[in-house]
Amino acid sequence: MNKKAVVLLSGGVDSTTTLAIARSQGYACYALSFDYGQRHAVELKAAKRAAQALGAVEHILLKIDLRAFGGSALTSAIPVPKNRSTARMSQGIPVTYVPARNTIFLAFALAFAEVRKCGAIFIGVNALDYSGYPDCRPEFLRAFQRLSNLATKAGVEKTREVAVHAPLMHKSKAQIIRTALKLGVDLGLTLSCYDPDPRGRACGQCDSCLLRQTGFAEARAADPSRYKH
Amino acid sequence: MNKKAVVLLSGGVDSTTTLAIARSQGYACYALSFDYGQRHAVELKAAKRAAQALGAVEHILLKIDLRAFGGSALTSAIPVPKNRSTARMSQGIPVTYVPARNTIFLAFALAFAEVRKCGAIFIGVNALDYSGYPDCRPEFLRAFQRLSNLATKAGVEKTREVAVHAPLMHKSKAQIIRTALKLGVDLGLTLSCYDPDPRGRACGQCDSCLLRQTGFAEARAADPSRYKH
Repeated sequence: MNKKAVVLLSGGVDSTTTLAIARSQGYACYALSFDYGQRHAVELKAAKRAAQALGAVEHILLKIDLRAFGGSALTSAIPVPKNRSTARMSQGIPVTYVPARNTIFLAFALAFAEVRKCGAIFIGVNALDYSGYPDCRPEFLRAFQRLSNLATKAGVEKTREVAVHAPLMHKSKAQIIRTALKLGVDLGLTLSCYDPDPRGRACGQCDSCLLRQTGFAEARAADPSRYKH
Repeated sequence: MNKKAVVLLSGGVDSTTTLAIARSQGYACYALSFDYGQRHAVELKAAKRAAQALGAVEHILLKIDLRAFGGSALTSAIPVPKNRSTARMSQGIPVTYVPARNTIFLAFALAFAEVRKCGAIFIGVNALDYSGYPDCRPEFLRAFQRLSNLATKAGVEKTREVAVHAPLMHKSKAQIIRTALKLGVDLGLTLSCYDPDPRGRACGQCDSCLLRQTGFAEARAADPSRYKH
């Protein structure tokens, strides 16, 4: 069985935990991160730390300029929403949604998987906390799985299909945090914030910080984040 | 009806003809080209000329470094095959195949379409001349269509689905050239070669040059390309 996997790694809790899960299942991991003009580019330092700490074979950082298109609070001048209730967060698709981001990330992961001859892609998407993001849903991933079987040389020649794994899909943030801690992940390496300061301190008020804080509280664990406030 | 379309434009005969077709159908066209570390980056000048000549509303050139992965003669040190017969070309998947390239290009096209509120994507893929490329087949495009309906905010909210059009899918190179000439396209603007010199002169010997020459001969039209030899 092919035990080589591409792991999409942003440096947040979810993708770092996903990398730890892939490692714990015996995969040699090829981590892939993107500098896509996000406001929170300091998260890439977190990705680098996580890739090293968790023993990725290789870590590639790709620069792609999603700012050329605009259209998201994460890549343009639209303000990041602060201090919203979880009820509010779950209404509609948030302005922090980046158009087709996971489609783009998975497309690159597929290219990387094909070149490095990997049989799997791991992605830390989650349908519970990110119900508003269309490209975090199981039906989206199933459609990508179907596409990937038709898109590559190995898929067409039936020599190797690339299985898309999303081990966090149905976990709550608290369950993800407990999984990470059980696998010995130092969550102090991770950064969740959409709007951190240049020193990498989290804002504590954006949706992502609030979900993280609620998750740690529910998991009855201490959040090692450094916060501005 | 939404008459705005993203058109993937490489600057070759196929994508330029595709842009002309979209324009002739009344679409306002948002052209999208990629600098992906290809050997033949002078083709981007051809794309720029074509976008202007055919009246694209906007032309975005995205830089993405597919060289980071390697694995194709178009982006790495693998030599571009020369002087192959068409029978030889059609055997298996050529080394000029770029892993998951059309998946990546379509993913970006989808993001661009979503931000500019376009209802269509046009791509100049062709199943006849490029039978060896998995991501040029109708079943691949159908899978991408399915994915795109699930991937975007507009798709999920059912406000606007993005229809993927491949008007050249079943045309021969000669038919494509005749279509272009009928639409008044100056094919002297285009560059097909995988291995041109820095001044933009075609090699005349790679698969793409040979297909072009055969196409012009079959269409009984003069090839306005500048060749090295």
